[in-house]
Amino acid sequence: MTRPSEDDLIARYFAPLAGEGALRLQDDAAVLTPTLGHDLVLTVDAIVAGVHFLEDDAAGSVARKALAVNLSDLAAKGAAPRGFLLTLALPNDWSEPWLAAFAQGLGEAAAEFGCPLLGGDTVRSTAGPWMSVTAFGEVPKGKAVRRTTARPGDRLCVTGMIGDAVLGLTLLQGRSGSWAGALADDERAFLVDRYRHPRPRLAAAPAVLAHASAAMDISDGLAGDLAKMMRASGVSGEVDLEAIPLSPPAGAALAADPALLDALVTEGDDYEILCAVPPEATAAYVDACRSAGVAAAVIGTVREGDTLPVFRYGGAERRYERGAFSHF
Amino acid sequence: MTRPSEDDLIARYFAPLAGEGALRLQDDAAVLTPTLGHDLVLTVDAIVAGVHFLEDDAAGSVARKALAVNLSDLAAKGAAPRGFLLTLALPNDWSEPWLAAFAQGLGEAAAEFGCPLLGGDTVRSTAGPWMSVTAFGEVPKGKAVRRTTARPGDRLCVTGMIGDAVLGLTLLQGRSGSWAGALADDERAFLVDRYRHPRPRLAAAPAVLAHASAAMDISDGLAGDLAKMMRASGVSGEVDLEAIPLSPPAGAALAADPALLDALVTEGDDYEILCAVPPEATAAYVDACRSAGVAAAVIGTVREGDTLPVFRYGGAERRYERGAFSHF
Repeated sequence: MTRPSEDDLIARYFAPLAGEGALRLQDDAAVLTPTLGHDLVLTVDAIVAGVHFLEDDAAGSVARKALAVNLSDLAAKGAAPRGFLLTLALPNDWSEPWLAAFAQGLGEAAAEFGCPLLGGDTVRSTAGPWMSVTAFGEVPKGKAVRRTTARPGDRLCVTGMIGDAVLGLTLLQGRSGSWAGALADDERAFLVDRYRHPRPRLAAAPAVLAHASAAMDISDGLAGDLAKMMRASGVSGEVDLEAIPLSPPAGAALAADPALLDALVTEGDDYEILCAVPPEATAAYVDACRSAGVAAAVIGTVREGDTLPVFRYGGAERRYERGAFSHF
Repeated sequence: MTRPSEDDLIARYFAPLAGEGALRLQDDAAVLTPTLGHDLVLTVDAIVAGVHFLEDDAAGSVARKALAVNLSDLAAKGAAPRGFLLTLALPNDWSEPWLAAFAQGLGEAAAEFGCPLLGGDTVRSTAGPWMSVTAFGEVPKGKAVRRTTARPGDRLCVTGMIGDAVLGLTLLQGRSGSWAGALADDERAFLVDRYRHPRPRLAAAPAVLAHASAAMDISDGLAGDLAKMMRASGVSGEVDLEAIPLSPPAGAALAADPALLDALVTEGDDYEILCAVPPEATAAYVDACRSAGVAAAVIGTVREGDTLPVFRYGGAERRYERGAFSHF
């Protein structure tokens, strides 16, 4: 069987996904007309087989994840998505069914997130597949929410639920302990789905833009990402571990094995938004998130200082020295 | 020896390269304020060890190439560079000296090309290193030069010189024939340098913007890229092979081995600009390029039709069925 050429692949699988400005992918570059009075927010994240996803994950899920992890960054800056570029690296043994499923998943995710494909590059991988996505969003000029601007007294808030993804990954890897047996099938399936299908909190972006003094997405674990935001802002913080929102399946797992708590707050792939909100705006922020269909919880407070954030549980204090997933 | 963390790496090697809007790389996203009345031109290209560069190429050269191949795309759209994002994948056995040299080469190239680093992502590669660069340029609104808009009667023009890079690569790979012996040491070194250090024709971008009806950069071989531009524009073309500009070393190699001609026009890595210019604007285009320090030559004419472009040499005609470097 003759393999299709790069141009054939693009025409067959990716051109149908192309948005305005993408010139139906017939050019080497895309053109984006910025909205008057807005800044562009730019972010790039790559995912690699065997590092960020499992070799046997479904191609459509992988495509969705490649886009979702970038849109999570945009949402945390308060930005609305405008489009994305994709670099797709295919191994020597790539198959057309895999590519077709990848393109279908990518198209579904792009439609769901309102973020069209604008262009890309396809290359050969000398190992497994990998993909790097660059996503573009817009915010009113000067309004992008930074992670360097949290202020003492701000309340710390998170969207959604923390820790589901690490439990899902643990189940997929067959490394789970006795807690897995305490869960029903649909609870385990929920956790696996939360790992495989991150949901960027784009609906919460307007609330972040309106109310947060600093924000970032939680991709490498709550404890490590909070430490990054506090360090970048020149402050410290304290978190009430009992206030961290858990899904019912994660709560059941934790009840069965209380030692899971550290993993829930230090492991990655949550793709929730962590933000610091001035105390007088906190109720409005939480309400705005909820009105947009996104749960939001207050979990702590920004404090002066340069120490690692402290996590309180009952009367005890914990600090997570190396709380973030290491990329190397 | 303890490996530095991802944050340490970024602070040590990449933050010093960061431009305005990059927030000293302390954020997950960069912010770009578009110039009023301009469109953004977006392009992404990845290079992979063992595919687009040689495993033992100097890290600084690899970094320069990763940026240069993208800026070549911007130049061909008539765009002025604003900045870039980098995804850098490091293998398990990466070394700090390699990374330091990579960052130094990247910084030098960014300064030379006037295109600052705005952000990026570092990931682990399960094979050799690879990097994907997304570059951002600007053109006056609606003025980006497409490759789909060449018109019958337009003259076909190329900047610089064609075919040096394939000869340089052939020398590096030790695959060269008798022609290598016909060249002096400095001629061979010139060709190798042309392969290793592509020079994006940014200086010619204003001339392209002012005069070209269609343009693209030549990255995968003149014949194949011309065929792409003609097909995307719904036209055909004819090229005078004797008019294709060759460097003195490439000319000497061709004199020693006339069979090289096909390789010179079908192999990749030229990173020159191919454009179609209305006949009445051709002299002005060539003059504007030369005034900007870039050679430009007229090599043929756009014709009506949907056949592959024809290349004439003496009385003979050639068509290149598969003229472009295949990415798979």
